[in-house]
Order: sequence, then C-alpha cells, then structure tokens
Amino acid sequence: MPERTTSLQDIYAAQGVCFGCGPANECGLRIKSRPQGENVVAIWTPEKHHEAFEGVLSGGIIGTLLDCHSNWTAAWALMRAAGADHPPCTVTAEYHVRLLRPTPAGGPVTLSARAVEVKGDRAIVEATLEAEGKVGATCRGTFVAVKPGHPAYHRW
Amino acid sequence: MPERTTSLQDIYAAQGVCFGCGPANECGLRIKSRPQGENVVAIWTPEKHHEAFEGVLSGGIIGTLLDCHSNWTAAWALMRAAGADHPPCTVTAEYHVRLLRPTPAGGPVTLSARAVEVKGDRAIVEATLEAEGKVGATCRGTFVAVKPGHPAYHRW
Repeated sequence: MPERTTSLQDIYAAQGVCFGCGPANECGLRIKSRPQGENVVAIWTPEKHHEAFEGVLSGGIIGTLLDCHSNWTAAWALMRAAGADHPPCTVTAEYHVRLLRPTPAGGPVTLSARAVEVKGDRAIVEATLEAEGKVGATCRGTFVAVKPGHPAYHRW
Repeated sequence: MPERTTSLQDIYAAQGVCFGCGPANECGLRIKSRPQGENVVAIWTPEKHHEAFEGVLSGGIIGTLLDCHSNWTAAWALMRAAGADHPPCTVTAEYHVRLLRPTPAGGPVTLSARAVEVKGDRAIVEATLEAEGKVGATCRGTFVAVKPGHPAYHRW
C-alpha cells in the first residue's frame, strides 16, 4: 500500500515549493509519489477548481500531475542507477500528454510511472493517469539532472 | 494592442470554470486569448505559487497555459473555417511541451499560437511561451471539436 510509506517529495524535498509537487506550497497540488516495485505511484484527489468543465478534470492539471510525477520518477531512477543516497535535481526537457477520454474529477486519480530508459544524466519516463478504473491520459517525457550553476541545481 | 480587445474567453465562455481559461474560476489561471492577425496572443502574469522553484515558472503551469491557449486558438480557427458566428466546443487530444530554458516567474509571459492545420473537426496548433524576450517553451497539440453527447459539448 503506497500510501503508508513516506513520499519521495517528503523525504527529499520537504521545503519544495513547486506548484505540482512541493510539500510546502499550500496552493499547489502537492502530489505524493511513492516507489512501488519498478513503478512510482501517486494517488491524488482534485478540488473543484481543478476542473475543465463540470465533473471533468482539466487537461492542464492532468499534464501538471503527470509532469511532476514523472520528474520524480526520473530523479528516483537516476539515483538508483548511480547508487546514490539522494536524487539529483531534475527538470523536464519535454513531455507529451495524450488525453484518451474525459477524466472524472469527483474522486481520486492514480498516477503510475516508470523509467523506460536511463542514460547518463537523463531518463525517459512513461506514465498513466487512471480514474474510476480507466486510463484517462498517458504521458511520455524526458527529464534531465541539472549541473552546478543551473538555477534548479538546489531545488531539493 | 491585444489587451484592448475582449478576449475569446470573455466573449464566448464568460461562465467557463476551466482551471486554465475559465473567466469564472477564481482559483484558476484565467488566461485571456485575443486574436491578432493570424495568431492568437495572451499575456499572463504568474503568482508566487505558480513557481517550480524560486523565481522560475512551473513546467506544469506552462503546459496548462499553452494547452488552454492553443485550445482556444483551435476553436477560433475552426469557427473561421466553418464561417460560423461562435466557436465549436473543443477539447485537447494531445499536446507536446518542450521546455527550452527556465522561464522567469517575476513578470508577465506572452503566449502566441497559430493553427497550422485545420481539417474537419480538428486543428493542429503550434504555440510559444515567451518571457523577458526569450522563448522559454514551445507546444504543438491537436484539438478536436466534440460532437453532441460528449460531456464537453456545452462547455461554452
């Protein structure tokens, strides 16, 4: 049960303010991503103002969830590949969201992601967003560990 | 000066609640997209909680802005192609965001989009997000006019 473990964000970036995943951003989405085998999983519940129209989750919020969750999945994969004890600070290079059907906004959604390629300083991550038992959206993105001097180098 | 005209959202969807573009969503981004020649332009100013980390705009917010702005660009293009007096209700099929550099969050950003292909019920739109004179992100997406029976059919 992934909810019973501490999330990657709370372990490695408790002071993070990112709109999508910063535990310290009170107006943010504050997703909690937890490793579960080879996947990373997050369960998140929308608020009313996250809708696109009545009862349906905004595609931009869906993209934000998938982007941040995938970025953490990449950071975790890069950490494991390096045998490090903490994740590198990663940023999104690009992400591609496919919206397969309207995603109901009345209850929790489940994000599930996996690094499908890890090479050097970057990871390619594939992710899904599921609600009421159906995959509403998929995402594939590239995430990069930044070097010293990049403004994100100390993001967590 | 596009700010002096009424936005597409305010003309055609004043009661819209979409997180990204609904004029009636007080917690939303409330972008205002205005035709300007063949392009559609929006100028939007971030709030502090839209950051990814200190001084830099969240990639998820960037995607949300580009998605909603491109969707309105598609609706407007489809309206013009059909010779209609109001836009069809459109939804996002897919969008691909490329983040070229960190986008400063301390001032306004400019979204600019153009339909590069309009065919039947769908449009392909390319868009950029610029801040402090530099393009920070680009987006290419496919947007579709929904049919009667789709939950978005009466979204505006």
